[in-house]
Amino acid sequence: MSAALYNHEIVSFLVVFICIGLTCSTKYTPDWASLDSRPLPTWYDESKIGIFIHWGVFSVPSFTNEWFWYDWKTFKNPSVINFMKNNYPPDFTYADFAPKFTAEFYNPEQWADIFSASGAKYVVLVTKHHEGFTNWPSKVSWNWNAMDVGPKRDLVGELATAVRKKPGMHFGTYHSLFEFYHPLYLQDKANGYRTQDFVRDKTMPELYELVNEYKPEVIWSDGDWEAPDTYWNATEFLAWLYNESPVKDTVLVNDRWGSNTRCLHGGFWNCHDKYNPGVVQKHKWENAMTLDKGSWGYRRTSKLSDYLTMDELIKTIASTVSCGGNVLINIGPTHDGRVIPIFEERLRQMGKWLDVNGEAIYSSIPWTHQNDTITPDVWYTSKKTVNGTDVYAIVLDWPRNNKLILGSPNVSSETVVSLMGYPNKLNWVPGTQSGVEIQIPDIPYNKMPCQWAWVFKFSNLS
Amino acid sequence: MSAALYNHEIVSFLVVFICIGLTCSTKYTPDWASLDSRPLPTWYDESKIGIFIHWGVFSVPSFTNEWFWYDWKTFKNPSVINFMKNNYPPDFTYADFAPKFTAEFYNPEQWADIFSASGAKYVVLVTKHHEGFTNWPSKVSWNWNAMDVGPKRDLVGELATAVRKKPGMHFGTYHSLFEFYHPLYLQDKANGYRTQDFVRDKTMPELYELVNEYKPEVIWSDGDWEAPDTYWNATEFLAWLYNESPVKDTVLVNDRWGSNTRCLHGGFWNCHDKYNPGVVQKHKWENAMTLDKGSWGYRRTSKLSDYLTMDELIKTIASTVSCGGNVLINIGPTHDGRVIPIFEERLRQMGKWLDVNGEAIYSSIPWTHQNDTITPDVWYTSKKTVNGTDVYAIVLDWPRNNKLILGSPNVSSETVVSLMGYPNKLNWVPGTQSGVEIQIPDIPYNKMPCQWAWVFKFSNLS
Amino acid sequence: MSAALYNHEIVSFLVVFICIGLTCSTKYTPDWASLDSRPLPTWYDESKIGIFIHWGVFSVPSFTNEWFWYDWKTFKNPSVINFMKNNYPPDFTYADFAPKFTAEFYNPEQWADIFSASGAKYVVLVTKHHEGFTNWPSKVSWNWNAMDVGPKRDLVGELATAVRKKPGMHFGTYHSLFEFYHPLYLQDKANGYRTQDFVRDKTMPELYELVNEYKPEVIWSDGDWEAPDTYWNATEFLAWLYNESPVKDTVLVNDRWGSNTRCLHGGFWNCHDKYNPGVVQKHKWENAMTLDKGSWGYRRTSKLSDYLTMDELIKTIASTVSCGGNVLINIGPTHDGRVIPIFEERLRQMGKWLDVNGEAIYSSIPWTHQNDTITPDVWYTSKKTVNGTDVYAIVLDWPRNNKLILGSPNVSSETVVSLMGYPNKLNWVPGTQSGVEIQIPDIPYNKMPCQWAWVFKFSNLS
Amino acid sequence: MSAALYNHEIVSFLVVFICIGLTCSTKYTPDWASLDSRPLPTWYDESKIGIFIHWGVFSVPSFTNEWFWYDWKTFKNPSVINFMKNNYPPDFTYADFAPKFTAEFYNPEQWADIFSASGAKYVVLVTKHHEGFTNWPSKVSWNWNAMDVGPKRDLVGELATAVRKKPGMHFGTYHSLFEFYHPLYLQDKANGYRTQDFVRDKTMPELYELVNEYKPEVIWSDGDWEAPDTYWNATEFLAWLYNESPVKDTVLVNDRWGSNTRCLHGGFWNCHDKYNPGVVQKHKWENAMTLDKGSWGYRRTSKLSDYLTMDELIKTIASTVSCGGNVLINIGPTHDGRVIPIFEERLRQMGKWLDVNGEAIYSSIPWTHQNDTITPDVWYTSKKTVNGTDVYAIVLDWPRNNKLILGSPNVSSETVVSLMGYPNKLNWVPGTQSGVEIQIPDIPYNKMPCQWAWVFKFSNLS
Repeated sequence: MSAALYNHEIVSFLVVFICIGLTCSTKYTPDWASLDSRPLPTWYDESKIGIFIHWGVFSVPSFTNEWFWYDWKTFKNPSVINFMKNNYPPDFTYADFAPKFTAEFYNPEQWADIFSASGAKYVVLVTKHHEGFTNWPSKVSWNWNAMDVGPKRDLVGELATAVRKKPGMHFGTYHSLFEFYHPLYLQDKANGYRTQDFVRDKTMPELYELVNEYKPEVIWSDGDWEAPDTYWNATEFLAWLYNESPVKDTVLVNDRWGSNTRCLHGGFWNCHDKYNPGVVQKHKWENAMTLDKGSWGYRRTSKLSDYLTMDELIKTIASTVSCGGNVLINIGPTHDGRVIPIFEERLRQMGKWLDVNGEAIYSSIPWTHQNDTITPDVWYTSKKTVNGTDVYAIVLDWPRNNKLILGSPNVSSETVVSLMGYPNKLNWVPGTQSGVEIQIPDIPYNKMPCQWAWVFKFSNLS
Repeated sequence: MSAALYNHEIVSFLVVFICIGLTCSTKYTPDWASLDSRPLPTWYDESKIGIFIHWGVFSVPSFTNEWFWYDWKTFKNPSVINFMKNNYPPDFTYADFAPKFTAEFYNPEQWADIFSASGAKYVVLVTKHHEGFTNWPSKVSWNWNAMDVGPKRDLVGELATAVRKKPGMHFGTYHSLFEFYHPLYLQDKANGYRTQDFVRDKTMPELYELVNEYKPEVIWSDGDWEAPDTYWNATEFLAWLYNESPVKDTVLVNDRWGSNTRCLHGGFWNCHDKYNPGVVQKHKWENAMTLDKGSWGYRRTSKLSDYLTMDELIKTIASTVSCGGNVLINIGPTHDGRVIPIFEERLRQMGKWLDVNGEAIYSSIPWTHQNDTITPDVWYTSKKTVNGTDVYAIVLDWPRNNKLILGSPNVSSETVVSLMGYPNKLNWVPGTQSGVEIQIPDIPYNKMPCQWAWVFKFSNLS
Repeated sequence: MSAALYNHEIVSFLVVFICIGLTCSTKYTPDWASLDSRPLPTWYDESKIGIFIHWGVFSVPSFTNEWFWYDWKTFKNPSVINFMKNNYPPDFTYADFAPKFTAEFYNPEQWADIFSASGAKYVVLVTKHHEGFTNWPSKVSWNWNAMDVGPKRDLVGELATAVRKKPGMHFGTYHSLFEFYHPLYLQDKANGYRTQDFVRDKTMPELYELVNEYKPEVIWSDGDWEAPDTYWNATEFLAWLYNESPVKDTVLVNDRWGSNTRCLHGGFWNCHDKYNPGVVQKHKWENAMTLDKGSWGYRRTSKLSDYLTMDELIKTIASTVSCGGNVLINIGPTHDGRVIPIFEERLRQMGKWLDVNGEAIYSSIPWTHQNDTITPDVWYTSKKTVNGTDVYAIVLDWPRNNKLILGSPNVSSETVVSLMGYPNKLNWVPGTQSGVEIQIPDIPYNKMPCQWAWVFKFSNLS
Repeated sequence: MSAALYNHEIVSFLVVFICIGLTCSTKYTPDWASLDSRPLPTWYDESKIGIFIHWGVFSVPSFTNEWFWYDWKTFKNPSVINFMKNNYPPDFTYADFAPKFTAEFYNPEQWADIFSASGAKYVVLVTKHHEGFTNWPSKVSWNWNAMDVGPKRDLVGELATAVRKKPGMHFGTYHSLFEFYHPLYLQDKANGYRTQDFVRDKTMPELYELVNEYKPEVIWSDGDWEAPDTYWNATEFLAWLYNESPVKDTVLVNDRWGSNTRCLHGGFWNCHDKYNPGVVQKHKWENAMTLDKGSWGYRRTSKLSDYLTMDELIKTIASTVSCGGNVLINIGPTHDGRVIPIFEERLRQMGKWLDVNGEAIYSSIPWTHQNDTITPDVWYTSKKTVNGTDVYAIVLDWPRNNKLILGSPNVSSETVVSLMGYPNKLNWVPGTQSGVEIQIPDIPYNKMPCQWAWVFKFSNLS
């Protein structure tokens, strides 16, 4: 990366200059009105399901969660303090964990295989969390990155390559703007964010490196909340990203670009850590959630009851996609580079469910209803077809007595009802007042199309 | 332990002496004819299901399996050699792994809770594997035991206490007679087993310590195969165990007491590592098997496909108990003391299955048939009742079209057939030639009593 | 430090602006003509003897020398490559040494005590060598400094405090401009030094931090040789240092500020690593040398024969001071913070010699002769007195037959000759052609004033 | 070693049996009367000076001294407790130090070179100190020896080989009978030493291994004091050693074979740690002393003032040899296998002194006087010659005014006096009452034969 890239004023100026020229391919100016006007590349909404990966030095203690450092030093969480006291010498620091981040079993091909089998269509890897350790060999994080210390490998580059070998898979990067304890950040903070040394020397160079080197199609920004977008130079970066970068045509970003941007600006929105509004949204959004309910990073102490069951996971997918969101399903790999079997099991089981029911998920759009008016725990999606609209009812609980009563679909004599994964059309009658009553045939246990939720498809609704 | 205990001649002599006395509680002499005549305490056969735990220094590399050391140094397994070369300094030895056996998350109460929930009735912990490292503070394994190095805890004692707090649970100990590389063992071996320094200084003192200190109700001996029982002083030990030891009334041992004893002498038999004969046995036997198909010790590299599925596990239980065996289900805890979630999941799911179907397992006895004469993958057990014999058919695959055809049961008009976990009696008709045809009612998915195998109970067979 | 300090154009501009004002205390402009016109603070020349301390991450391997990293990775020194291969895992990096830089025995008061007893008058501590690891908690070397990793202490600050408690002792800092492998430096280098990202983000902030925080009276610059002073922004920094800094009145620097400055610009000169020209110099210079002849950093493999003997050390002092130089005597502390006994012995013995002979060293000036015209291994110094000039002949070898024949001193009848540390005046006669012949009395072994070199003082020479 | 060797009764019996035969080479019976009757092999007394080496796991903390473990756990020395608390995790044990005993720089040839240059004639290496860690691969100290853990080398064997390559050098082994914390020892102790499990399983096998494998010519026993010789089976071992062992003709032992043997039984005596009685002894004795006054093992915190000066060392040699003792001069190598420079310096300087003055030391015998009757700090030795007796006066302080007045030598006109290392005979006159007055000529500083003590030789005394 040339040094000039750091000087965003100059970059911006050049951009404008070029635009005065003839074949002006550049259209976005570094302000939200312009940036927000960019249409989102369509691959993202069509994908619906992504995998989120929290991996870093926090994966070494793998205790409490990925905020371990802050828990320890700022929150002074007694369980973390005791953990350190009981297991490490008195002057052990967080930086001392880094050499133990060994990643000797890191096999990105194997990871990509699991992700692909899960039915996810994109992968977002934490490239740097709030701890500041970069999972790629950043020039501005010398001796605090995965090539110099610990893994001695380019964790980001290797996964990018492996993921892209899988047909239809996209690769994205999570990146934290702020760092808990970077001295330049703390200095800027102490200066009321009137100085930007940290942004100039650390954050921005990192983002340019990431984009130029790894060409991510999602930039999942985070750690923005303590300072406004102007401190972070967010709009300048995004203008470059949209106009000039090697991923200008396909990249999406989220909305975490300053304390004043969430649910207001950026690409897709994920305004809260566990954002799942339960109703349809006007703006594209994403539900980032984690299979270990208590942590994004790997926790050694998680019990079975801490992991989402398949029922809970499928419910999350149904309720999110129904309301127009994407689901970003998080796993935390271990310090030695493994996706543990319970994660693999959940992901592969999800893949099996999607093998049967993916038609109701991928490229779907919200229907007029999200929940059924009569039966609870039913979520709708839909798809435009040449004949109109197909509607999918995702039924989380098996209907009592094999009779499914739905209030929302308006049936006509043309209406065809089927159960995904079951070969025959289903019989139905109109509901007593509205809707439809479906008598599900007796399907022997071993003929059930799937285990955790069942999708009923309606064609030719009136 | 007093030094005199090492001197088995003297002990035996005293035993005989006492027996000449009046209230002679001692009856077994140190020979197989006498020892084999002892009836097995009944708790063991009634229990049917135990948990086996392979834990030791091999849990630190947790690579290949619990024979890691031998794989590396004797078999010269290339993958182990490369693993060591790539991750450790050139002169790293197996002993150097011991300090990394940290066990910081070892919570025996939590383990016992999982084991209890699994439906198992006994637990057999590896107290010393072929590596020679004792998981208790043995006097004859100084600085090569879990109190001096690594965990700095008495792993055996803590688990014994926790397991015994669970009602109905029994505690046992696995112990390897030989050690891969103990210099005194190698010396005895080089001497054609004509010297017994190793037995005198190491093996026997360990067994006496274990019994006196932890009072195990199973002694699961292993590592016997290179030398005969006379080298190991097996019969002397067993005579003491049965006559004098604190567990003389309840303890059982297996049959691994010398190259000449397997499937011939001892308590229950487990003649092969994966002993499952598939037909009923005259002598009580045990099927020791492991949830990670590729290893008894924890392996970090195991993939989901390496773990037994629930279908496979239930099939193992059914086929073993049907033939009169116990099942000893193995897990490998991690170096830091955890039972990983995939193991916890399997065990808790097994517990759920046994909650419904345990009646067909615990305290059952083999029936006249083990497999059905018509339908494959059906295993029978039985129980004496005041009215005769109840028979249980464990059906591994859901019957096609909900119709179960069995050839072995001879029905009469009195015969009652039920599906365990389902409230109503089932309708049946006699089979066309013999046996019975059961029409299973249409049970909605959410009313199914269980997921992996279904038990049909027959009362009043003719 | 405020961020504005990084912007040297602005700083310089302000300086000029202030100078246009009234009470213009600022006189130096950022060019060599101006900077070189500054008189050297006198304390330095009067001190003559300083202690140099090479301490850093290289003190952990303490093998070959302080260029260990470069030896290993760039020179590919086979002995280093073998050392790493034989003792560390294959992917061990230089950064992995940092946590082993423990400094648990670092006792700066004890160090200062030894240095003070040695007769040295200043101490120059390596605050950052070419490896880039800062021995103080620099804001621009996060997680690659002695507070975050390894010692977990401010090595620089603690020694500064301890040294200053010793009367008459001055504290200085060694600082390397370049770093072997800093990615921003390598980038600037690849750009032909037309970019200065490294200087802006690393070198300059460090120097400002050092001066503002620790107020060193010597800045011993190094690592300048690959790029010219203009790349390093040397003159801007020095103008600030001389005009504005908290040490503007007492600080000295050396001449290592760019490939084009050695023996041309700066304060005192030390143009070569082992600079000892052997003849008097017009410009103040310093002879930096090391007690372990093979290394500046601590080497574990040094044998006794690798250490300077006292004879060699005293000869170095005599020959240097005679020619107008200062001697900067280097030691390498261990990774755990100790000055090893052989260094302590040399330094304390030097102190004993200086107790007797310091008058000939401290505050001395070169005489008209440096070596004697007749007797080899005699070095002269001198001092102005109210009566003229006292001359000191430092005689390295005891005169044969107790008769010292010197050709250089022109004696008169007023001339008084004494042996330092011996109470009585000595008898002498004029030399046969010129000079003087001194008959040294028979001094019993236990009455000898010192052991390694003897100083004869001449007053009232003609 | 065959197992039969453990059975000492049998061995003794065989010995007696053989003696009934014809060519009875065996003469010693296992009782002190017999054993003490054996004449000491003469090489030992002639050697006078040996090197003692304390090396073990205690060399890793290298703090306080070689009793570190006991200091920590039993004495509860606060400085040790704090050292551990400040630098190690809470559950760190002494055994955890062993893997850090790396010995990567251990170069036995280099050590032997230093020892040979020192003038010493034998080397006694600690093969096992009270910690129980064996510096050779003992069969009875599995995984607690230098081949299995830490160095991964046979420290004893390598040094034995290197030392024996030096002409005239003998190799010996220090061995501690007891161990601070061996569980079998603690058990025997708790049993009032009425059981001997520890002796049978550990101590005796070790001693036999050492003798058979390394053929030491000195067995320097220690750790005997808590139990009598009968517990240790001392006389049985010594009878074997003197009668049967491969070193039966040349070996010597000391007197530490039980709480009741010191200064009573055995070979040479070293009754106290710092035994130097100051008067001539009837029985051959040895003064074991250490160059670091505060420790036998290496201490990282030793200051220069903790090491014996050359004056103190030469005084020790003179006063010991004068009274008939040998001097065993101890050094403590580092955990990584080095003899630090200050030790090398002392030893090489001693060698230089002995080059000049060794005639007065080696093969000398005590004279009628040890100290002079007039001048203090003069120690005498002597030698039989064909003409009578040569007497050596070792003068520690240079005589005032070069005049040496001695009261003990009775001169005659034939008497010749010389200063060792000085070519000419010295003039003398008889003392005023008795003895002799020697006028030492004025020897220029650079002609002095040596630096720390001067030996005056008298031939033809009356």
